[in-house]
Amino acid sequence: MASKSVAVLVAGSWGTALARVLADNGHRVTLWTRNAAQAKEINEEKRNSKYLPEARLPDALAASTDIERTVGSADAVVFVSPSAAMREVARLAAPHLKPGALVVHATKGFESESLKRMSTVLSEELARPEEEIVVLSGPSHAEEVIDRHPTTVVVASSSIPIAEEAQDLFMNDNYFRVYTNPDIVGVETAGAIKNIIALGAGLSDGLGFGDNARAALITRGLAEIGRLGAAMGASPLTFAGLAGVGDLIVTCTSRHSRNWRAGSMLAQGLGLDEVLRRMGMVVEGVRTTQAAHKLARQFGVEMPITNELHRVLFENKPPSDAVGALMGRVRTHEIESAGLRLNG
Amino acid sequence: MASKSVAVLVAGSWGTALARVLADNGHRVTLWTRNAAQAKEINEEKRNSKYLPEARLPDALAASTDIERTVGSADAVVFVSPSAAMREVARLAAPHLKPGALVVHATKGFESESLKRMSTVLSEELARPEEEIVVLSGPSHAEEVIDRHPTTVVVASSSIPIAEEAQDLFMNDNYFRVYTNPDIVGVETAGAIKNIIALGAGLSDGLGFGDNARAALITRGLAEIGRLGAAMGASPLTFAGLAGVGDLIVTCTSRHSRNWRAGSMLAQGLGLDEVLRRMGMVVEGVRTTQAAHKLARQFGVEMPITNELHRVLFENKPPSDAVGALMGRVRTHEIESAGLRLNG
Repeated sequence: MASKSVAVLVAGSWGTALARVLADNGHRVTLWTRNAAQAKEINEEKRNSKYLPEARLPDALAASTDIERTVGSADAVVFVSPSAAMREVARLAAPHLKPGALVVHATKGFESESLKRMSTVLSEELARPEEEIVVLSGPSHAEEVIDRHPTTVVVASSSIPIAEEAQDLFMNDNYFRVYTNPDIVGVETAGAIKNIIALGAGLSDGLGFGDNARAALITRGLAEIGRLGAAMGASPLTFAGLAGVGDLIVTCTSRHSRNWRAGSMLAQGLGLDEVLRRMGMVVEGVRTTQAAHKLARQFGVEMPITNELHRVLFENKPPSDAVGALMGRVRTHEIESAGLRLNG
Repeated sequence: MASKSVAVLVAGSWGTALARVLADNGHRVTLWTRNAAQAKEINEEKRNSKYLPEARLPDALAASTDIERTVGSADAVVFVSPSAAMREVARLAAPHLKPGALVVHATKGFESESLKRMSTVLSEELARPEEEIVVLSGPSHAEEVIDRHPTTVVVASSSIPIAEEAQDLFMNDNYFRVYTNPDIVGVETAGAIKNIIALGAGLSDGLGFGDNARAALITRGLAEIGRLGAAMGASPLTFAGLAGVGDLIVTCTSRHSRNWRAGSMLAQGLGLDEVLRRMGMVVEGVRTTQAAHKLARQFGVEMPITNELHRVLFENKPPSDAVGALMGRVRTHEIESAGLRLNG
């Protein structure tokens, strides 16, 4: 395929890893960041020491603090801001976006107050219909992608031809496989909520509950994600796929997961503020717990893991009581239990 | 509930761990083994050094080599033989089984030549209808259960009252939660096939592919299990539950998993005979790969992971070629791909 000019906003770990994939695919890639020192480090030393300290970035990868030039020249713009900054970054980019440019995002979370999905936020700020927005998601730790470990992701848009444009952009034969999926609601919901379950898995592991307990928690988490997704109009098949169970597994069982690490620190008795201070990076699951807690009420969906996490994070419930409550729920018939109404 | 007399056949790691649960629940438990030295060690030292070397067994747990007395006095008999020995052990037990005794098994595999499920084998040898057999399955490493880590399992029988009898026997408030499920075909199929996927996950990890690749493999594995299960008459909901995705996760991501360990040794270039020699215990996934390979043809179901494992185990295919083949499959639309037809 032809080489394209691609803008990636912003230069966190996932943005940087996706920029490497795009550069490896022969595209001209510019990472936009507000941080001049970071841009200088990427351009001159080919490193992003805060987010991916071990990696050497490709020579073809440039960084810039100039959003007008970065976005204005781009055939495709990839938004990878934290969810809390997505609207602001989209607003900055909007005046410079070329009319036919492809818009992709790879951010997992909801907007805090509005509870909107990221594609809705982008659609509003970029004045484009939602079917012209693509989400990229799936089991994909940045730390592995930057080292070119084999990784499989999904690009979703209600317009399959537009999803296929994104597939062509990111796919390579070497290490990055990309599948299309028309269910953007399911892919975005699954990607967001799994961070809550990862916090819970970190809590469980941090308390020493073991692999059996964690597997039970993840299984219930998958059902919980599926219930909210179904209420929001998603397809149950999405939750059985890479963006559902695949991403859930990698996030809940990998040492690379920030949300898992945050959960395990909470289990050690650290308060939320202290955990976030020590992490030094955005932990999307924390905000997502607030958002999903509200969405559960709004859609009338039972979300026991989300509720227990909400109590631990924001209502000072001791983590051991929360995990105990999840383990000891009084349900006896598996298929009658809320735990398994995956199809709604 | 009233204390019962329970026989557990045989004294491997899972049989011993389940015997501890039953002893903790106040039942009189006898582990049957053909190995007199093992029976002596369990009775006199309260240890099972070959299978669970770290554990001290409860005083209430006895062992015996006398099948007539062990089974003849039992209100419930729990079969936990390796799948290859199930028919023989059932045949030994059959003449002594009390008419009203509850029959449970907790073995994950198919009979090699006949490809029958374990409940069918027991039904035939014990001359009981299949609905009077219960299977116990779910994410439950013996090494954690013996240490009383919180664990959640499923007991399945097409007769729910009989499944509930097993639930009453095993359930406790302390660390062992038991759900019922009427779908014995799904629970047995999921429990067997997940050992194949665990071999594959061990291969992938042993080759250094990383967490992203492993999560993609597990996701495809879940779909593969679901396809065979659906063809055999199982409910799709079972595969989304504890005996499906729950057990798959724990087996593919835990250091305790024998099948995962066997896969990672294969990745290091050891031949199958050498791997089995070093393991020194039954690796159910090896036989299950043969059985599932035949079942896939019999039911006309696509099982790419099973097929690649079959090539590695029995046709000398190099592991890296097999994992490469799985990663590079030419599919682009996730929901159209065989990988996601979970519902058949």
